[in-house]
Amino acid sequence: MKNIYRFLMELEKLKSINRCAYIFDLSRNENSAEHSWHLALALLTLKDELDVKIDIYRAIKMALVHDICEIGAGDISIFHPDRSQKEAEERKYIAELSTAPIVFSSEIRELWEEYEQQKTKESRWVKVVDRLLPFMMNINTEGKAWIEQGIRKSQVLEIHEVVAVEAPEVYKWVICQIERAVEEKWLINS
Amino acid sequence: MKNIYRFLMELEKLKSINRCAYIFDLSRNENSAEHSWHLALALLTLKDELDVKIDIYRAIKMALVHDICEIGAGDISIFHPDRSQKEAEERKYIAELSTAPIVFSSEIRELWEEYEQQKTKESRWVKVVDRLLPFMMNINTEGKAWIEQGIRKSQVLEIHEVVAVEAPEVYKWVICQIERAVEEKWLINS
Repeated sequence: MKNIYRFLMELEKLKSINRCAYIFDLSRNENSAEHSWHLALALLTLKDELDVKIDIYRAIKMALVHDICEIGAGDISIFHPDRSQKEAEERKYIAELSTAPIVFSSEIRELWEEYEQQKTKESRWVKVVDRLLPFMMNINTEGKAWIEQGIRKSQVLEIHEVVAVEAPEVYKWVICQIERAVEEKWLINS
Repeated sequence: MKNIYRFLMELEKLKSINRCAYIFDLSRNENSAEHSWHLALALLTLKDELDVKIDIYRAIKMALVHDICEIGAGDISIFHPDRSQKEAEERKYIAELSTAPIVFSSEIRELWEEYEQQKTKESRWVKVVDRLLPFMMNINTEGKAWIEQGIRKSQVLEIHEVVAVEAPEVYKWVICQIERAVEEKWLINS
């Protein structure tokens, strides 16, 4: 039990990793633990609505662990120009975590690696929803995080390429909302 | 997509429901969304370590939705003397949510009801871990939330009865930690 206690208290640290997007009432930034919860629920919601053909249990597990690497590396904006050092730190942390005397720690590493590789349908879909949720939150908070970072329309379009490929129906909605965000001056029109 | 957007932004409100326990660095109280994430990961961790025989996918879905009712009713301490009004408000909120034009909303109601009824092995195990995690967090933060609320040893023992029944190995560890918490004066010895 001591090992289980230590492991669960280590994972808990994800609650203090803050992301760029603001939660609905603008009171604070989202953290990566609650984001992972929201992501799992969004996968369950979209699976039924869009009849997504994936191993949903595997996708949910992947959603729950995909950001654990940030305990070692922090969260930096997806729009940050240099993410390479962060990736090395993330991989190092996951490798260390997988040496814990806990069976599930190896599965975390596998799931995390699958997400990073982006080769399976499940990992692609988790990424679709991982893009979609902060996008929705930005729309819902009138672009607060975009305005703060001076984000351009072209940057948002670029990170949503995976949505265009995997979920064309979702992408149509995203494009409409991007046009609206430009009109509202939440995004720079370039 | 508009309905999906509205539904996911509704669920997001769970991020602003605060609980009694403090996160590891004592900087703030835990919220119910990140708690649900932690609960799902703890179920996955314990399943392997203790060889728990349950439908783990169902248990994880239950963990992810078990507190959504608090969006309508808030979180009150498990040690609060009158929780009956809260239960009525919770049930009302879940009933309203299940009228959303989203297929998964009916499954949320089913899973939530199963958890409330506490008749299945899965719902009992989710409760075991739902008790265990705030207990671990209280140990990890030197009893901060217990001290603030003036909690007695007998109250903690009472809410852990489900752990004694379903997970005797876990319960042994809990009892040792309770003794330690009394010695450290994190809990009142009565």
